[in-house]
Amino acid sequence: MAMTLAFARPELDVKLITTEAGNQTQAKTVANALAFASYLGQDVEIAKGLDRPMFKALEIAAEVHGNSGLGDVEFPVPMLELSARTAVEAMKQVLMDSPEPVVLIATGPLTNIGALLFAHPEVKPKIKFISYMGGAAVGGNMTPTAEFNVYVDPHAANLVFRSGVPIVMSGLDVTHKAYVTLEELEELERMDTDFALKVAAMMRFYIKQAKQTAFHPADSEKCIRLHDLCAVSYVVTPELFEGDDCCVEIETEGRLTAGTTVVDYAQLSGKTANAKVLHTVDREKFVAQFFGAVEKMG
Amino acid sequence: MAMTLAFARPELDVKLITTEAGNQTQAKTVANALAFASYLGQDVEIAKGLDRPMFKALEIAAEVHGNSGLGDVEFPVPMLELSARTAVEAMKQVLMDSPEPVVLIATGPLTNIGALLFAHPEVKPKIKFISYMGGAAVGGNMTPTAEFNVYVDPHAANLVFRSGVPIVMSGLDVTHKAYVTLEELEELERMDTDFALKVAAMMRFYIKQAKQTAFHPADSEKCIRLHDLCAVSYVVTPELFEGDDCCVEIETEGRLTAGTTVVDYAQLSGKTANAKVLHTVDREKFVAQFFGAVEKMG
Amino acid sequence: MAMTLAFARPELDVKLITTEAGNQTQAKTVANALAFASYLGQDVEIAKGLDRPMFKALEIAAEVHGNSGLGDVEFPVPMLELSARTAVEAMKQVLMDSPEPVVLIATGPLTNIGALLFAHPEVKPKIKFISYMGGAAVGGNMTPTAEFNVYVDPHAANLVFRSGVPIVMSGLDVTHKAYVTLEELEELERMDTDFALKVAAMMRFYIKQAKQTAFHPADSEKCIRLHDLCAVSYVVTPELFEGDDCCVEIETEGRLTAGTTVVDYAQLSGKTANAKVLHTVDREKFVAQFFGAVEKMG
Amino acid sequence: MAMTLAFARPELDVKLITTEAGNQTQAKTVANALAFASYLGQDVEIAKGLDRPMFKALEIAAEVHGNSGLGDVEFPVPMLELSARTAVEAMKQVLMDSPEPVVLIATGPLTNIGALLFAHPEVKPKIKFISYMGGAAVGGNMTPTAEFNVYVDPHAANLVFRSGVPIVMSGLDVTHKAYVTLEELEELERMDTDFALKVAAMMRFYIKQAKQTAFHPADSEKCIRLHDLCAVSYVVTPELFEGDDCCVEIETEGRLTAGTTVVDYAQLSGKTANAKVLHTVDREKFVAQFFGAVEKMG
Ligand SMILES: [Ca+2]
Ligand SMILES: [Ca+2]
Ligand SMILES: [Ca+2]
Ligand SMILES: [Ca+2]
Repeated sequence: MAMTLAFARPELDVKLITTEAGNQTQAKTVANALAFASYLGQDVEIAKGLDRPMFKALEIAAEVHGNSGLGDVEFPVPMLELSARTAVEAMKQVLMDSPEPVVLIATGPLTNIGALLFAHPEVKPKIKFISYMGGAAVGGNMTPTAEFNVYVDPHAANLVFRSGVPIVMSGLDVTHKAYVTLEELEELERMDTDFALKVAAMMRFYIKQAKQTAFHPADSEKCIRLHDLCAVSYVVTPELFEGDDCCVEIETEGRLTAGTTVVDYAQLSGKTANAKVLHTVDREKFVAQFFGAVEKMG
Repeated sequence: MAMTLAFARPELDVKLITTEAGNQTQAKTVANALAFASYLGQDVEIAKGLDRPMFKALEIAAEVHGNSGLGDVEFPVPMLELSARTAVEAMKQVLMDSPEPVVLIATGPLTNIGALLFAHPEVKPKIKFISYMGGAAVGGNMTPTAEFNVYVDPHAANLVFRSGVPIVMSGLDVTHKAYVTLEELEELERMDTDFALKVAAMMRFYIKQAKQTAFHPADSEKCIRLHDLCAVSYVVTPELFEGDDCCVEIETEGRLTAGTTVVDYAQLSGKTANAKVLHTVDREKFVAQFFGAVEKMG
Repeated sequence: MAMTLAFARPELDVKLITTEAGNQTQAKTVANALAFASYLGQDVEIAKGLDRPMFKALEIAAEVHGNSGLGDVEFPVPMLELSARTAVEAMKQVLMDSPEPVVLIATGPLTNIGALLFAHPEVKPKIKFISYMGGAAVGGNMTPTAEFNVYVDPHAANLVFRSGVPIVMSGLDVTHKAYVTLEELEELERMDTDFALKVAAMMRFYIKQAKQTAFHPADSEKCIRLHDLCAVSYVVTPELFEGDDCCVEIETEGRLTAGTTVVDYAQLSGKTANAKVLHTVDREKFVAQFFGAVEKMG
Repeated sequence: MAMTLAFARPELDVKLITTEAGNQTQAKTVANALAFASYLGQDVEIAKGLDRPMFKALEIAAEVHGNSGLGDVEFPVPMLELSARTAVEAMKQVLMDSPEPVVLIATGPLTNIGALLFAHPEVKPKIKFISYMGGAAVGGNMTPTAEFNVYVDPHAANLVFRSGVPIVMSGLDVTHKAYVTLEELEELERMDTDFALKVAAMMRFYIKQAKQTAFHPADSEKCIRLHDLCAVSYVVTPELFEGDDCCVEIETEGRLTAGTTVVDYAQLSGKTANAKVLHTVDREKFVAQFFGAVEKMG
């Protein structure tokens, strides 16, 4: 979903896609990325990321994303091949070779970017900002206080949030408002292109899954949230979003709270803001933007 | 404030008041309790609590509560004397001697009650429930995720929340809605009794303090929240409040989150509810109830 | 074993025995204490302790101590009955009623004493010192750095070590040197009294167990360590032991090190000594003292 | 000191020296490495490491190593220049370009190697083993349980010890036995070469410092321990050392024990050995080896 918008918009020049373990194992995530980008006719480097979180054992949200990670939708055998470079190496070289600062869009655990920033801090000046889908100022979806992407690798998230690189955080606060209704979904299906039908089928798959798990909120049967898309949409059209500049820190310890994004909305800590925490989206324009991208790519 | 309502209502038979370090040192808290109860002509046992939290060093919120803990309002020399029993011993004996279950109302750190429940679990069947002002399902006032009373002694709070005794939690979620406006405060002043003027003076003191500290939210200059009163009011008139039964656990570790009340609103943990977490109050009836108590006691 | 010496020596006036969960469940520990003291013809109060550690789930070392906790040795039906007072209540009252300071001897987890000192700090001046079998300056037997008794309830141990009450710590450092050889055990058996034979049988049971578990060091088949006896023997004859005054703190957190007694032998922390940490015992005199007690009691 | 032996021995082909913050700031550490290697006439790449630990604030042991980090001994202006590659990048490329596995010798905090192994796990098969000066099976020198090098960056140490790369750990257990006596030091001075006198002067500086700090054990005035040299000497002559294969894990949390190397000597954890923990050195041969190196290089 998120890739669709990224490829569709002329404002973005997608140079590199890297994979993270988390929603699925690396093997499946890599296969999906190759298949999806190939299907869309994109010639882009896809590099494989690190296999597991920094310290924690890998936890996978397979029950949400389906066995293949793309619901049960099938894509043709990909034309693209996996890059010979690792994700960390590829990111480092793309950044160092870029004449101007680059935006990183991240929609999973932050293992690769954390490793990059820790091992190669010299890349920092080449990063304009990181648009991140993850975390939550209020609540969580994995534990009462932790969102899945941060929970999976809180230490890597900590490296990123402490790095000094500016972050725009599309946490659950905003992504829960970034949904497509069933009526809108039918509109997508009426486009009747192969791609629109595939996208709609994936979305229906997620809705069906949501009915069977405790992972999603109660209204998950009546709409579908496009969490990851927020992180791309913000880069293209920041005017669709509202948020506040806050200090965000990552709890890596705690018996109950590991993986919490501690967002200091009330400025109790006196610490400097390191992130813009989004809380509001113009939902109708957001959905229209996405449907426009599907139409263009289909 | 909270005592006023407790003494005023015939539904309550106040058997014992115990003090906690936290808002002030024990010496001041004890002096205040004796002075306040004496002034109101109450014959009640007041027992001194433990001097410090279970493991943490004592932190005091003196800047909020004024040097004496009662703003700058002065009360006559007390008639009452401190009990010869410690708070833990007195609570234990009052409970064991009571023919029927007793409600405990707690509006500070839980050091004494934690010690009681840990050292003397035989009292548990004698406790009907604990009405507690403390914690927060969302946010905090001491750190981004911790409310002051729990932050001061999270280990004691952990003993209480794990004890199996039912808890009604009046956290910041509801107490932030339990405010008196400046207009209502003037109404109190128009009662023109000595007691009403004293109460109003204490409330104006807190409003003045709030302007000078970062501890309170932005609207603190325009209203005053009666946090502790919620815990008493719920016992008298539970119908003024709404809340949800949840599992509440206390984070005692964590670099950033120690003192957090982890409230599992979304039932992600699968654990059994141990507390009713209040989130809504009928504010106008709540204020009227308090003013009625001041009028009756004045 | 430890009781035998305590009862045998005129220097000690045993006022109260309390039980701790840990080596066995409370039910078994209570039954053993009643049976053992009754068999020895002692008229002593035995009070039941708290059922479980402060925060941790109960772990039991049943595989070491046998199903009944006394090996497979059987004692007659006890004459003594369990006290109507809880262990915490009984300790509190014995201490408060004592005209002079009392020595507490503890040979298990510190749950009861921790609860006593936390809830009733007024007893502290009545405690001369605590003679404790637990902890280790070097190594552990439950984890690489934690000894069993402290590991079971590190938070209670923390309350005790921070209490200000002086402690003499018979940790693994000294108790590993407090062993009886197989030759000496035969000498005990040659006493040929019912009691000596029972004691010897218990000791042989432990040796047999040691062969089957990883819990004991490699030489456990060739000797038996009388860990708990050290804590009693030190009270009677401190001149048999050597140790150093150190600052000892309890690690209650840590992924790997919870339950560690952090002994600052090298005075790196600059903190004041709160315990004498024993490291050496005159083993032959220690064994002779024990055998003398068995002879006297048998 | 450690470099001296490494350069002197034909068995070693030193390809790269990288610097770590810890004993000194990076600026000083880099200056020292350049000066020392230049003085010895070595043509070796020296690459600057990461500026600070993974998560902890930088702590520096300047009081031990003198203001310049080389005691007060002065070296000529260096011929060598700092590499244009970062330490992580240089290590990665040297390893990937090497036809056969390489030994890494590390004598400070493990920040650089931790970053390398985390971000570029593809180098692991190119590492024969890591010879590490750091940690302790018993005790510590920074806290009662933590050795300085591990204490400074326990998270990086955790990455290294969990990496699967074999480690030989020269912890305090062996390095405390790797000392030079004052008599032997005089023997060094009698060599009367410029280099021998410089080395001896540095050693006398450390002895003088030791008298003024609590950091070193009581006998520090009468001998000097060559901690770091152990890690080089083991690579050249492993037969001088004895040790045991153990599971070593790093405590990164804990209020008291962060930075502890938890060495499972007694195999209580059942986990697989990941390190050889040295505990014994043939001290006289070790000293003779070092003096031989000084003589050869001087
Ligand atoms: Ca995602
Ligand atoms: Ca209060
Ligand atoms: Ca025991
Ligand atoms: Ca070093």
